[in-house]
Amino acid sequence: MKFTLTHKDSLTSARAGMMETAHGSVPTPVFMPVGTRASVKSVEPGELKAQQVHIILANTYHLYLRPGNDIMEQAGGIHAFMNWDQPLLTDSGGYQVYSLSDLRTITEEGVRFKSHLDGRNLHFTPENVVDTQRIIGSDIMMPLDECPPWPADKEYVKASGEMTVRWAERARSHLERTVPRYGHSQALFGITQGGTYTDLRTSTTKALVDMEFDGYSIGGMAVGEPAEEMYRVLELSDTLLPDHKPRYLMGVGTPENILNAIERGVDMFDCVIPTREARNGRVYTRNGHINLRSARYAEDFSPIDEGFDNHVCRNYSKAYIRHLLNVGEILGLKLCTLHNISFFMWLTRTAREQILRGSFREWKQEVLEQFNANRQSISS
Amino acid sequence: MKFTLTHKDSLTSARAGMMETAHGSVPTPVFMPVGTRASVKSVEPGELKAQQVHIILANTYHLYLRPGNDIMEQAGGIHAFMNWDQPLLTDSGGYQVYSLSDLRTITEEGVRFKSHLDGRNLHFTPENVVDTQRIIGSDIMMPLDECPPWPADKEYVKASGEMTVRWAERARSHLERTVPRYGHSQALFGITQGGTYTDLRTSTTKALVDMEFDGYSIGGMAVGEPAEEMYRVLELSDTLLPDHKPRYLMGVGTPENILNAIERGVDMFDCVIPTREARNGRVYTRNGHINLRSARYAEDFSPIDEGFDNHVCRNYSKAYIRHLLNVGEILGLKLCTLHNISFFMWLTRTAREQILRGSFREWKQEVLEQFNANRQSISS
Repeated sequence: MKFTLTHKDSLTSARAGMMETAHGSVPTPVFMPVGTRASVKSVEPGELKAQQVHIILANTYHLYLRPGNDIMEQAGGIHAFMNWDQPLLTDSGGYQVYSLSDLRTITEEGVRFKSHLDGRNLHFTPENVVDTQRIIGSDIMMPLDECPPWPADKEYVKASGEMTVRWAERARSHLERTVPRYGHSQALFGITQGGTYTDLRTSTTKALVDMEFDGYSIGGMAVGEPAEEMYRVLELSDTLLPDHKPRYLMGVGTPENILNAIERGVDMFDCVIPTREARNGRVYTRNGHINLRSARYAEDFSPIDEGFDNHVCRNYSKAYIRHLLNVGEILGLKLCTLHNISFFMWLTRTAREQILRGSFREWKQEVLEQFNANRQSISS
Repeated sequence: MKFTLTHKDSLTSARAGMMETAHGSVPTPVFMPVGTRASVKSVEPGELKAQQVHIILANTYHLYLRPGNDIMEQAGGIHAFMNWDQPLLTDSGGYQVYSLSDLRTITEEGVRFKSHLDGRNLHFTPENVVDTQRIIGSDIMMPLDECPPWPADKEYVKASGEMTVRWAERARSHLERTVPRYGHSQALFGITQGGTYTDLRTSTTKALVDMEFDGYSIGGMAVGEPAEEMYRVLELSDTLLPDHKPRYLMGVGTPENILNAIERGVDMFDCVIPTREARNGRVYTRNGHINLRSARYAEDFSPIDEGFDNHVCRNYSKAYIRHLLNVGEILGLKLCTLHNISFFMWLTRTAREQILRGSFREWKQEVLEQFNANRQSISS
């Protein structure tokens, strides 16, 4: 995988780049909509492309459970399975093992756990998680890692981070012993851990950088720590990670989080916010987020965000979408999801344009001021 | 509203026509997907157009309850509200009053009932149901009618049918005293009743024909009577209804019902089958219907109907849609719905082509043989 750093902002650490994967190019910074189980909820691949989505994320843990490796392999991998011919990244499933399954036992070998669906005993190792991702055929793979909670005891975070580094090394060695199944190359990132401990974050990051992965994921964030702590870790990571590799902040976040992370040198994001909140009726506008379930929109025939040029705003009013949500029509959830995805894509796409123009910092400040000022007035 | 009878089949009573409404032309025979609450479940208006849908149906009863007449009027009618710029027909809500609400009282004046949502007392009359449809702005309106169950006592069906005729007359008189709200003309059909009693069906039909409505709905069918009884009523209706007006068989039906009804002179159909069954995973193919929830499709990477040229078959496999249904992804329901709508549109569109070609009867026989022969082999 090739990553070209197109431009570095002179006032901040923001970067504009271009990632070349086996299924096409991805301009960065980029937001990756989440398609956990080989579907970005309620939206078709063609609709994602129309919203200028370049890359989506799927989840190794969920896909391993259903449809399972046999079916995925017979399908010829996830791109053929779900009819998505653009870049796709898979999370390793490590986070899901910790968050979804009970009775997990972590050893140096890997993690034993029970499926959250049927309770059957499963065993993930750095090696077999690479095997599964070979079968999925993602363009960018993640190694198995352990993501400690926040806060966590320093000794635990230290031991866990060191093991994550050893697991990354095993994943890389195993990757080199295997070949792609569908004729296209697959990249592997390293995932840094170490929580919010400066020395531990530094040591795991340095160890992974020495191994030269195709890119670096900043893991263990967005697990409950204050945003300021996360930003501090990003600033630290910015000094440790090489310029010429993409940087992916896993599981983040709100529009504000994303812009602040871009300012600190992050290139890639994924988060369930735009899709999950859409299903509760929360939609994003340049003036803050609003909840379309509210009766206040029952007679509001303006679009979600007046003047925002996307499919949903061009075609539907708040009152109509509010009616759909109110009567339980599936189309309401779909329109909210599609709008939010479009909004997050606009956010990272415009950030990139502003970085190239040298006006990122000023633009970011204006965007956040408008977002927060109006959010307050809407809430009051 | 103008209806042109383009061609009458020489071997059967099948007809090919063209209906001109305020929002465009509708070639007949035609299937109308059901968008009860101003949404054809999970599908966007643009997607309906792409499946060659010409006209959809919405429901006066449901729209009266939610969003209600105030919001519908402020929206500028249903076309603007839901962003559907093509023809739309509204059912009067009479059937829903009888099927959904308790404690209804029918008098000559109209019907008093409690909302199935919140129990509030409501009163539908032939006049106010026209008023509501004026506010909805449908291209084709239905008068309030009473739809007796099957079987029903002859005396009851007789009295009910006579009242339905009087209600139709009141609806027409009221229509003439009111004007369209949004600048486009609205047609009104008469609904024949009389159950399966030849003399009663004859008398209600003749009375309505004498009043000269824009078209005629055949009501009180698909309420549990044997298909042969329905076909007998259609044959009778074919002798009573004028050639130069469209004929709409309400709430019907399966592909077999539809073809048999076209053969007996029916022009228009609506039914929840393609949309409701899709949500249970049942999809239609030229070889019968199949249930995609079945494990037998878990590893079947062929399209729903090999060689059937629609969006869903071009882009997705049975195995993928089965996976979506299996894990509860909304996209699975949407793809099944879109496919079924496309299938029903293909059925009536092709029927029209075959009528124009003079080959309808032969084609219909082949279609049903293929549909039933393979359905048996799939089920066995």
